[in-house]
Amino acid sequence: MAGLLDQPHHDGSELYVPHGAPRLGDTVPVRFRVPATGSERAVWVRTVRDAEPRMEPARLEHADEHERWYVADIPMHNPVTSYRALLDEPGGYRWLNGAGVHSRDVADTHDFRLSAHEPAAAWLDDAVVYQIFPDRFARSSGHTGRPTGELPDWAEPADWADESIGSGPSTPRQLYGGDLRGIEQRLDHLQRLGVDTVYLTPVFPARSNHRYDASTFDHVDPVLGGDEALVSLSRALHSRGMRLLGDLTTNHTGAGHEWFARAQADRASAEASFYYWQDEAPGYVGWLGHDSLPKLNYNAPALAERMVEGPDSIIGRWLREPVSLDGWRIDVANMTGRHGADDFTHQVARAIRATMRDLNPEAVLVSEHFHDAGLDLRAGGWHTNMNYSAFTRPVWTWLVDPDNELGFLGLPTSIPRRDGGSMVATMREFDAAVPWSITTHQWNMLGSHDTPRLRTVVGSRAMVEVAAGLLFTYPGTPVMFAGDEGGLTGVNGEHGRAPMPWPSIDAGGGPRWDAATFDVYRSLIALRRSSRALREGGIRWAVVEPDAVAYLRETADERVLVLVARAPWGGATLPRHLVPAGGEAQNLYGGAALSLRPDAIELPGDGPGVQVWRLA
Amino acid sequence: MAGLLDQPHHDGSELYVPHGAPRLGDTVPVRFRVPATGSERAVWVRTVRDAEPRMEPARLEHADEHERWYVADIPMHNPVTSYRALLDEPGGYRWLNGAGVHSRDVADTHDFRLSAHEPAAAWLDDAVVYQIFPDRFARSSGHTGRPTGELPDWAEPADWADESIGSGPSTPRQLYGGDLRGIEQRLDHLQRLGVDTVYLTPVFPARSNHRYDASTFDHVDPVLGGDEALVSLSRALHSRGMRLLGDLTTNHTGAGHEWFARAQADRASAEASFYYWQDEAPGYVGWLGHDSLPKLNYNAPALAERMVEGPDSIIGRWLREPVSLDGWRIDVANMTGRHGADDFTHQVARAIRATMRDLNPEAVLVSEHFHDAGLDLRAGGWHTNMNYSAFTRPVWTWLVDPDNELGFLGLPTSIPRRDGGSMVATMREFDAAVPWSITTHQWNMLGSHDTPRLRTVVGSRAMVEVAAGLLFTYPGTPVMFAGDEGGLTGVNGEHGRAPMPWPSIDAGGGPRWDAATFDVYRSLIALRRSSRALREGGIRWAVVEPDAVAYLRETADERVLVLVARAPWGGATLPRHLVPAGGEAQNLYGGAALSLRPDAIELPGDGPGVQVWRLA
Repeated sequence: MAGLLDQPHHDGSELYVPHGAPRLGDTVPVRFRVPATGSERAVWVRTVRDAEPRMEPARLEHADEHERWYVADIPMHNPVTSYRALLDEPGGYRWLNGAGVHSRDVADTHDFRLSAHEPAAAWLDDAVVYQIFPDRFARSSGHTGRPTGELPDWAEPADWADESIGSGPSTPRQLYGGDLRGIEQRLDHLQRLGVDTVYLTPVFPARSNHRYDASTFDHVDPVLGGDEALVSLSRALHSRGMRLLGDLTTNHTGAGHEWFARAQADRASAEASFYYWQDEAPGYVGWLGHDSLPKLNYNAPALAERMVEGPDSIIGRWLREPVSLDGWRIDVANMTGRHGADDFTHQVARAIRATMRDLNPEAVLVSEHFHDAGLDLRAGGWHTNMNYSAFTRPVWTWLVDPDNELGFLGLPTSIPRRDGGSMVATMREFDAAVPWSITTHQWNMLGSHDTPRLRTVVGSRAMVEVAAGLLFTYPGTPVMFAGDEGGLTGVNGEHGRAPMPWPSIDAGGGPRWDAATFDVYRSLIALRRSSRALREGGIRWAVVEPDAVAYLRETADERVLVLVARAPWGGATLPRHLVPAGGEAQNLYGGAALSLRPDAIELPGDGPGVQVWRLA
Repeated sequence: MAGLLDQPHHDGSELYVPHGAPRLGDTVPVRFRVPATGSERAVWVRTVRDAEPRMEPARLEHADEHERWYVADIPMHNPVTSYRALLDEPGGYRWLNGAGVHSRDVADTHDFRLSAHEPAAAWLDDAVVYQIFPDRFARSSGHTGRPTGELPDWAEPADWADESIGSGPSTPRQLYGGDLRGIEQRLDHLQRLGVDTVYLTPVFPARSNHRYDASTFDHVDPVLGGDEALVSLSRALHSRGMRLLGDLTTNHTGAGHEWFARAQADRASAEASFYYWQDEAPGYVGWLGHDSLPKLNYNAPALAERMVEGPDSIIGRWLREPVSLDGWRIDVANMTGRHGADDFTHQVARAIRATMRDLNPEAVLVSEHFHDAGLDLRAGGWHTNMNYSAFTRPVWTWLVDPDNELGFLGLPTSIPRRDGGSMVATMREFDAAVPWSITTHQWNMLGSHDTPRLRTVVGSRAMVEVAAGLLFTYPGTPVMFAGDEGGLTGVNGEHGRAPMPWPSIDAGGGPRWDAATFDVYRSLIALRRSSRALREGGIRWAVVEPDAVAYLRETADERVLVLVARAPWGGATLPRHLVPAGGEAQNLYGGAALSLRPDAIELPGDGPGVQVWRLA
């Protein structure tokens, strides 16, 4: 028997916590399951109320030969109310929190949490997000040579077939000329794949191909087709039942931004208060020292009004007709509003959410925070985060090709290869810092425009499948970077911003496009769509071995078992009762039958691969 | 060789970080030591700047046959700047943070931290604090029967020899009549013991013997001798070079408080805004539901002015002449300013500190937070905290008498008995949440007026010695509850508020007073005073076994080894070079010689007991 399923369990999913955000003053029944092998004399729930713990007894609600279910009532006293269970056992109590079970006292960091902040809109439960870097996706002209027409003075035009330049002065200047109507023409590709939400990196005019150095937030770059093209793309997406998210730099503007020009021309202007000025060159604070990216200063109330507050703010205007964005991804959200002793991050995030709530309660707000985002995510601003910490990084360390020497997202070392236990411990630690209502919407990625390409990191199609198996079955929102579904490569973020090889794609495979990888992605997306448990279920770890991990995703009406192996690993057994008497295990992905012995379920020990079964 | 000392190490003590609080904009050199057994190719330091990590290379500064020292420059960009080390090793990097070394990515929770908030005054480095509950320490009259004179209407007078009533309606009413002049008469006892700082629980008039339900903050209770008695006590202490701290309830007043009377009489009064009103009975919010303790409401600017801001506030006036308190302990600091969606705790704490800074920069501010105080302590308000979480609770779990069934500070279970590994992991986890400048001043306790007595928890004089061995050698400020030095007993906080048995004390032992325990305390306090390393040194764990722990306390000029065992444990060896060639280990406490073999230092495996040696 695998010991992991002999642990008591709780998470914030529907089996344990009623669906929907509680309100202040509500009483919330929360449930805990304890396997019949447990030795608890009683279960108590410790809530934290105005920073003071309080113990509530849990009642035994249901027991059978396999497990006991306890329930306790938690008063929703604070906007984020944390809690954990005490298992009163002979030999001393143990605590159950989001990171697992502990035989000693622990701090509150990994407590479970109920949040009165409304979660992201329900559509995100079902979304599969497709990230598009506009310059590299498709040209509406169909032309494949160097882009023609009026190009910005900084641009270095590239043939569509050119390799992306990964470093050096040409990296931000290399312009392929992808545009928004080009994207609109290719929406069939997205629907064939099965994604339904487009996240577009910035579309404002700028002095670079990535456009994170906007020169205005008021209009779409004419090179991309201008405002009309964005309106058209948005309508085309919406008419297909798809959604569109934008990308905004609330942390900085470009040095060529119209606000910054006014600020420099007139230090008495309102815009001058939007920036940090200093005596040393270049006279202002640039983000991470980049002169091209002057840092915004939220000491200025007028900046918050212009940028984030109300229907006429930058945030607001693009959520409204005719573009009607379905949400924003916020660039460098972790640093937005933070500078030295200034810390306005939570105020800015809450202001953005309030503006969204007023204009479109269905809009979602996603932060970019590469690191420890727990405290920011609990503050009621960002709905969810680009989940490098709890997903991308640990998955990479488990699946990295040991022969490659790619840099590891800002660290001065290559990506280390770790075992399944390290991966899972890291995922659990970071997941445990946020309420389940956020975990279930975290933007899980296997890469982005800021990272090496997945295919390059893991080194083989087989490992891409293992990684994608995790992406589409783990709690959270699957987010993929356009081209990953064809096995595009790249040794860093810039190098990985490769144009989509449409001739090969249209031909069903060819140079730079792996049709088998596409089939893997399409099948896994379809798998996810076929199972509510995979989208909304809780997660119980069943196997954590160096070369394989398995987990249950469970709703009230479904139990799915996911087994992911990076190599042959020898197999394991699970408790037989996970499949109800008279039932059988239905393979949903991978093709292997699950052997049901009278006393145990036998997991196959081959690998690498992904197997998914519906157990109940 | 004990493996623990083969780990790389850093803490915030003088060997690693320059003494004194850095200012914003400073560059701070921080040092890391790596044993020669390490396999690092390089060491990097990861700082977090506006929530964005940044890697700085560390330089190899010094190497010998035993260890390598690296140094890196940390820009002090944020008021609290967190950092950790990356050890670039074959097979993948490891992180070193305040909780230890990790072979996977971890969140920032346990990062080391530099704080630009000025630390507590330097006198706290050397202080040994003696907590006095005024009703129970001494009567100036010398009379031992029931107290006479004008007593409050609620009082139930007690003979000095009566047992304290641990629960029931008489518990808060039982009045022994100890007074401030009684304390003043007994200062020789404190100096014989070696303590130098008196922390007095509240002295304001109230409707209970504990006086946490003040009826005014403007005057000292006449039962205690009134304002003059406090002035006299303060002067007596100061003339002996000793210090005096008060105790204030910023979270609530008594229902009999003059502010609350005005608030109830006139809901248009300023005082009415000081409280939370509700429709349900009793019409206002009481702390934890106690009608006798109306909760204060810091939405009211007038309350902050009255209570905490400026020289005429309650905080301020008692710091000024003639009482000249040396600081405040803040009752229920964790809940002060918190209620539902309101969270003013950090503002209140910072306001108190600002008032202190203006009136007496030497004054210290100590919070009562029984739980996870890390976030509050980093906010620049409280200097330090009553350290139940990182000290009292873990030490109790290691030393508890397995036969007793005392409640465990609010948990619905008795105190569990855990091994040394659990104790140390808990201490490290909670310690790691705060900058070293706080760790080194944490108010470590083995009990207080709110807990069972240490002697009752651990069950024997021998175990009291082991516990006190930890108290006086662990980083932080040793704080003891008056009477612990004589082995007073008590099964809960109220029962442990026993009057000091002066006849036995004066006789050098007798009923309820264990002279041998007194000698243990006196010797351990003297030990601490004899070693700067024990007061200010860093800490490196050397041995963590179920029944024994050992650690090094180190300054630039001293290395002290502390070995504490709860039972015989078999012994261990440590690296020989901890004692310099030609040097010897000098026993400072416990009497055992340390065996220096040519290749190792041999630690004796007997127990229970406390051994302390100066190695260098």
